[in-house]
Amino acid sequence: MPLSYRGRARELLLAKGIEDYNFIRIIHKDGVELSGILIPRAELEDDKHIVLKLENGYNVGIAIDSILEIELLSKQREIRKEEKLIARKAPIKGLPRVPLIVTGGTITSKVDYATGAVKPYEKPEELLDLIPEISEIANLSYIPLMSIFSENMTPQHWIKIAKEVEKEINSGSEGVIIAHGTDTMHFTAAALSFLLEGLFKPVILVGAQRSIDRPSTDAVLNLFSAVKMAVEGPIAESMIVMHGSPSDEYTYAIRGVRARKMHTSRRDAFLSVNEPPLAKITRKSIEILGRNYNKRQKEGEVRAADKMQDRVALIYSWPGIAPDFLDFVVDKGYLGLVLAGTGLGHVPTRLIPKIRELTKDGIPVVMTSQCLFGRMNLNVYETGRLLLDAGVISVGDMLPEVALVKLMYVLGKTTDMNEIRRMMKENLRGEISNFLSITVFPPGDVSYV
Amino acid sequence: MPLSYRGRARELLLAKGIEDYNFIRIIHKDGVELSGILIPRAELEDDKHIVLKLENGYNVGIAIDSILEIELLSKQREIRKEEKLIARKAPIKGLPRVPLIVTGGTITSKVDYATGAVKPYEKPEELLDLIPEISEIANLSYIPLMSIFSENMTPQHWIKIAKEVEKEINSGSEGVIIAHGTDTMHFTAAALSFLLEGLFKPVILVGAQRSIDRPSTDAVLNLFSAVKMAVEGPIAESMIVMHGSPSDEYTYAIRGVRARKMHTSRRDAFLSVNEPPLAKITRKSIEILGRNYNKRQKEGEVRAADKMQDRVALIYSWPGIAPDFLDFVVDKGYLGLVLAGTGLGHVPTRLIPKIRELTKDGIPVVMTSQCLFGRMNLNVYETGRLLLDAGVISVGDMLPEVALVKLMYVLGKTTDMNEIRRMMKENLRGEISNFLSITVFPPGDVSYV
Repeated sequence: MPLSYRGRARELLLAKGIEDYNFIRIIHKDGVELSGILIPRAELEDDKHIVLKLENGYNVGIAIDSILEIELLSKQREIRKEEKLIARKAPIKGLPRVPLIVTGGTITSKVDYATGAVKPYEKPEELLDLIPEISEIANLSYIPLMSIFSENMTPQHWIKIAKEVEKEINSGSEGVIIAHGTDTMHFTAAALSFLLEGLFKPVILVGAQRSIDRPSTDAVLNLFSAVKMAVEGPIAESMIVMHGSPSDEYTYAIRGVRARKMHTSRRDAFLSVNEPPLAKITRKSIEILGRNYNKRQKEGEVRAADKMQDRVALIYSWPGIAPDFLDFVVDKGYLGLVLAGTGLGHVPTRLIPKIRELTKDGIPVVMTSQCLFGRMNLNVYETGRLLLDAGVISVGDMLPEVALVKLMYVLGKTTDMNEIRRMMKENLRGEISNFLSITVFPPGDVSYV
Repeated sequence: MPLSYRGRARELLLAKGIEDYNFIRIIHKDGVELSGILIPRAELEDDKHIVLKLENGYNVGIAIDSILEIELLSKQREIRKEEKLIARKAPIKGLPRVPLIVTGGTITSKVDYATGAVKPYEKPEELLDLIPEISEIANLSYIPLMSIFSENMTPQHWIKIAKEVEKEINSGSEGVIIAHGTDTMHFTAAALSFLLEGLFKPVILVGAQRSIDRPSTDAVLNLFSAVKMAVEGPIAESMIVMHGSPSDEYTYAIRGVRARKMHTSRRDAFLSVNEPPLAKITRKSIEILGRNYNKRQKEGEVRAADKMQDRVALIYSWPGIAPDFLDFVVDKGYLGLVLAGTGLGHVPTRLIPKIRELTKDGIPVVMTSQCLFGRMNLNVYETGRLLLDAGVISVGDMLPEVALVKLMYVLGKTTDMNEIRRMMKENLRGEISNFLSITVFPPGDVSYV
């Protein structure tokens, strides 16, 4: 076998007679001993690191300066079954077809060891080569649709993704996986929930909080779980599949309209707000936790809506917010406003005359709560009743971000105020529930173990 | 004893010979049997409910239409020790002085049974009469400073409260309690953290998610815990004391700059974000959980800052947010902007030129994360590095709402950009930590029991 490394890394490896895919052992200067398969790194310009695939399936990048000893254990490593599968290009007969629509993000990125920053892979195949077990359950095809960090997603990108999903499902895919940056993954998941009308197969957004060439990556389990859910799961909705705990044991499938990224960096950053996750997925099983869900069908036709009104704004209220702040709506030609009020859905009463003007002018004003967890109730306090009287649309236990996406979708369908109000208050995709379990809240007690 | 009830309630009670403070039993149409003391309701115009004080200390309002049977158990009820204490007007010698500054909110409100809505008490003494045990540990004095729902609080109200706290502490109070609506309690708690310079006694915000005349009220335990923490606790900071679990067993004292209301209606709605609560308080004990805190001193002098810049805005970013949206900052004369970006602290790259213009014009732009939990890091991804280059001030693991309040405070002190940057990035009151415990996050697993 050849050796794909360059520069100093190459020198170090050559001196020991080590080639790509050899089984080697390293003693790290921290005293840790690591053994694993040397992964080829042809694409990597950096010559200061080598990458090992450990027995547990993780890949670990190791700075060569930190290596005390390096030793070749075996050249004659047995080629494992799954590696043979990778080599084969033609689809395996009988395995379900699952497209992986790549949009960008950490899951399709690697660490640039020179700067410590994260950059997109140029060839997304690198990703799948590291998770050979997927080839045993699905014929995964790559669809490199775009390559953007998710903070740069717009409603127009959501429509583009929805159209691609529509094409794939209507042409026989068992499910669709979308590799996506985690920053705004929950916005896209909510958007696809609404845009994909008549959905009858699973649509799964998946990402990574740590890139796949890092030892702590969550990409492997997340992507494997996503494929498993896409081919075996009974749920035909737009979902997010990401780690369910800090350990690498299981993932949750969270309904797109209930997901929110609630931690900057943990692997289990996504929470299912106001309802349990739809399912818990391990390497061996799928356990359904959701009470009501849209079931997978053999036959059907999904239609992707192609309009979203992007002149809609989301404002989290704060003490001291001035009425003139809301002038931007008219000044900048916004056509809808979602407020994330405090508590049960309140804003300062001094804003109410301005809100009344907006709703009179045909601009829908939707009220949600910045508490995120729990349910709006504008009937308890005077401020709430005044807001209702001013025309505010209260939307139960819907998340602010989901209300924003839904309003964009609804305004793409109609400009009739009564119809907007009716649609916003109607549960279309599980974004509003009538029953709210009091247990589905981060318990203050257990969090502080 | 007289009977204070009116109309239909009065008829029902008179028919059984029942008077105020009698010990009575009721069989509810739901099959529940309740016995307790009939609480006088002179202030209540409603004639459709009676209120019982149960053995467990709770007050429960009962619709007379739901009463199947009502029975007088005892007229000769023994007057309990704490009720004698209430009767005495003069302060008890030796008990510490603790003022209760009343600002409004549910804790000083009652249900208007006619409409189901909540209205403020006209006489806040009604509140304390229901929690006689407080009289045993402190001489509580009422300071009815204002009577507003907390959504109507402004930075000017915060200063007014801070000035009152300053006066009380510098004149010998052992601690100060502030009754406050829960909607924006965490904003006020953060504001007091910054405004009260040289604080050497506890300052405790307390509220209720359910009003005190409802059986499920949290007001009793919250207020009792607040008084206990004010007179016995070792921590001299601005804190929130509210339920720590859905049960009525303990409260948490949460650092003002770490608290956030995270549920619309649960009694344990406030979470301590990115660090454990400072203390757990039961009826019998105070358990300190915080690692670092400002210690109570016998002597000292607190000074309340008297300036806050209220032309500061908070914007939670969303996919599709347009650069022209940020024009409001200049158009409306805002002097500071806090962004709650996605993930590690990102906004769409198309906003970056506008952000650069703002910082060049001397308007500080502070970056936080809408994930709420976790820590900013603008060095990982390209977008983050571009934001830093554009002059954005990244503030570690500070909450967006706390960054807003802090920026108002800092801009009240200085308009020098270097000084603003230095102060925003410096840990002044525990709002930024260097060490972030990964366990302090709502665990996805346990939430879904």
